[in-house]
Formats: sequence, C-alpha cells, structure tokens
Amino acid sequence: MSSRGTLYTVSAPSGAGKTSLVKALIEADSQINVSVSHTTRTQRPGETNGVNYHFVSKEAFLSLVEQGGFLESAEVFGNLYGTAQSWVEDTLNSGVDVILEIDWQGADQIRAKMPDTVSIFILPPSREALESRLTGRGQDGADIIQRRMEQAINEMTHYIEADYVVVNDDFGIALHDLQAIIRAQRLTLDNQQARHSLLLEQLLS
Amino acid sequence: MSSRGTLYTVSAPSGAGKTSLVKALIEADSQINVSVSHTTRTQRPGETNGVNYHFVSKEAFLSLVEQGGFLESAEVFGNLYGTAQSWVEDTLNSGVDVILEIDWQGADQIRAKMPDTVSIFILPPSREALESRLTGRGQDGADIIQRRMEQAINEMTHYIEADYVVVNDDFGIALHDLQAIIRAQRLTLDNQQARHSLLLEQLLS
Repeated sequence: MSSRGTLYTVSAPSGAGKTSLVKALIEADSQINVSVSHTTRTQRPGETNGVNYHFVSKEAFLSLVEQGGFLESAEVFGNLYGTAQSWVEDTLNSGVDVILEIDWQGADQIRAKMPDTVSIFILPPSREALESRLTGRGQDGADIIQRRMEQAINEMTHYIEADYVVVNDDFGIALHDLQAIIRAQRLTLDNQQARHSLLLEQLLS
Repeated sequence: MSSRGTLYTVSAPSGAGKTSLVKALIEADSQINVSVSHTTRTQRPGETNGVNYHFVSKEAFLSLVEQGGFLESAEVFGNLYGTAQSWVEDTLNSGVDVILEIDWQGADQIRAKMPDTVSIFILPPSREALESRLTGRGQDGADIIQRRMEQAINEMTHYIEADYVVVNDDFGIALHDLQAIIRAQRLTLDNQQARHSLLLEQLLS
C-alpha cells in the first residue's frame, strides 16, 4: 500500500548550489522527482522542451492561468513562469515525492494552496563564499554584482519561513542533509500509516 | 554556537528490537545519549549501577518524587522507576540529544512536561516475527506467551501517538531510519537558527 508523495519546496539565493543539490538528489532516488516549470520565455540554445522548461505561448499560459491550472506563477523580466498543478498532483498521487525549486514568493503561494508542503532553505556557508560565487568569472561590473548581492540577501531574509535549513558548506554533507529530511518525512506517522496499513491491521488484530 | 539538544522518546512492544537499535544509535553518534533510569528494584548480577540503572532506595526515590525531580515515573510489579529531570535538562542544555526508552504511558507524561519531545515508535515487521521473538527459547508456557502477546498488542495500539514510526524488518535499515529522523531534526529552522546564529547575522547584514 503506497502513501501519497510529499511536496517539497527548495529555495535559496543564487550561488548557494541549489540546482546542483536537487539534481544529485533526484539522480540518487527514484521516488522523488523535480517539477518542470512552464514558461513563455524563448527557448535558448542547449535547452530541451519538457526538460529545462515546458515552453509555451503567452496565450496558452494565460489560458492555463484562467483554468486555475497553476500552483504558482510569476512574471520575471516580462516572461511568465508557473508550476502546473496537474503534474504535481498526479506525481504525488502515484506515491512519488515532488521537489519545486522556487523562490520564497513561489513557496508562499504553494504553501497557501498545499499546507502539507515541506519547505527547505539552502544557505551558503559564508558571506565570502556567496560573494565569490556571485562574482562569477570576473566578467561583470561591480554594479551588477552589487545588485545580485542585494537580491541574494533579500531572498535569504525569507529563510525564516522554511521548515528546514541546510547550509551548503560541503556538497556531500548538504546532499545527505537533504536526503535525511526526505527519509524522515517518509517515516512520519501519517505516511507510515498509509504505507503499512496492512501490517498495522495484522499487528493489532 | 550550539543549539539545545532534542529529547526523543522511543517506544515499542517487547520483541521489536528497541534496545539493540538504541544501543547502536548511541554508539555511532557522540551527540546523542540515552537516559539511565532510577529504580528501587534490586540490582541483578551483571548489572552496573549508573549504567543499567541508578539503583536507589525507596526513601531516596520518594524524596526525589516529592522534589518534582522526575520527568516521569511508574510502579511496575511493586518497584518504582523514573527518569531524572536534572540529567535530561543538563544534557539537552549542553547541546546533546537525549533518548528515553520508555513505554507509551511514560512517553505521555514526558510529552505533557516537554511538548518539544519527538516521539518514535518501533514496530516489528509482522505478527509472526513478533510471536517468534516473544516465544523466546521455548522455555515458557503458552499462557505466559499469550500474556506477553496481549501486552505487546496493547503497547502497539499507542503507535498512533508517535511523531515517527519505524518498522524494524532489516536492522541496518531501521537504524538508518532512526539516524535520518535525528539528522533531520537537527536541520529544523529552530535548531539551525541557534546553531548558525553567527552565520545568519553575517549573511543578512
């Protein structure tokens, strides 16, 4: 008997290593999957439709919005981004966990619609590490780096809304931290009652 | 900056492997310790005072009860058993987690006094496995085994009060389950805020 999957939001400032951690998490565990967002922005070279994003027209996107088809959506630099509710629900109902890589505003929208969501915030190990990651290869001007830093700090102030906080100092340790959170979540009373309903019936009879 | 330790109660019917699991857990993790109960029962050969139990006189025990010194206490077959609050509090305050191996009634008393307690229930993997473990070496009569089985079922009905449920089918998997619960608990917002207060101050300034 399979229990319903759990929905996770993973948020972080740019440069905290969120995407690499989520990728490693998915690769190591077949019972968890990452949601692919819909977007109206133009597909870039190297990007695959359905893998990086579901690339859709603005009309198709707005029609989905009207149907209440998104768990959350946002406009960034004139492009629309959203998380389709149907795929998330179908995946959770099949017993597979779902991860949404999402900023704090998206995570807020998700929590409002699905209060059982487990939210994780990833932090860099130091101010210096964050600055060094945001500086990149030294091709950008000081003002651009400064703006990135302000955005990162603004995002980080919302760590306080998360259920769990992971500090990404050592990649392997941070990955194990995420895996422990997911493993523990599968052992909560509700999830174990659903998974082991036959065993419980047998033991208590 | 160290956060306060977490208090865990671990409950299970006899024969579910609780004591072996807790022993392995403690041995593998220096940041968690198991509470040694006070008891008025007679020390048996092979038992060490302060390791298996704190063996105390009935007068000393009742004096501690009067001082409100126990987190929980119970009388079993005319002997008194209790968990000293001072050791638990001192250990938690030093940043070390504490495990109490305790039946559901004791866990109830603990939760009432310390609502942040995380409770774990360990179940056997099948009715047959439980019966086989309770039958032991075949030296006991059917009525004694029957009584043990009834006690085990009575204890198991209280799994529903736990935060987490672990099924002890494979010892190694069950041990990793317990370790994941403890690791995840250390990553909750509250614990991470305490542990990383300096980092958070530095990142958000």
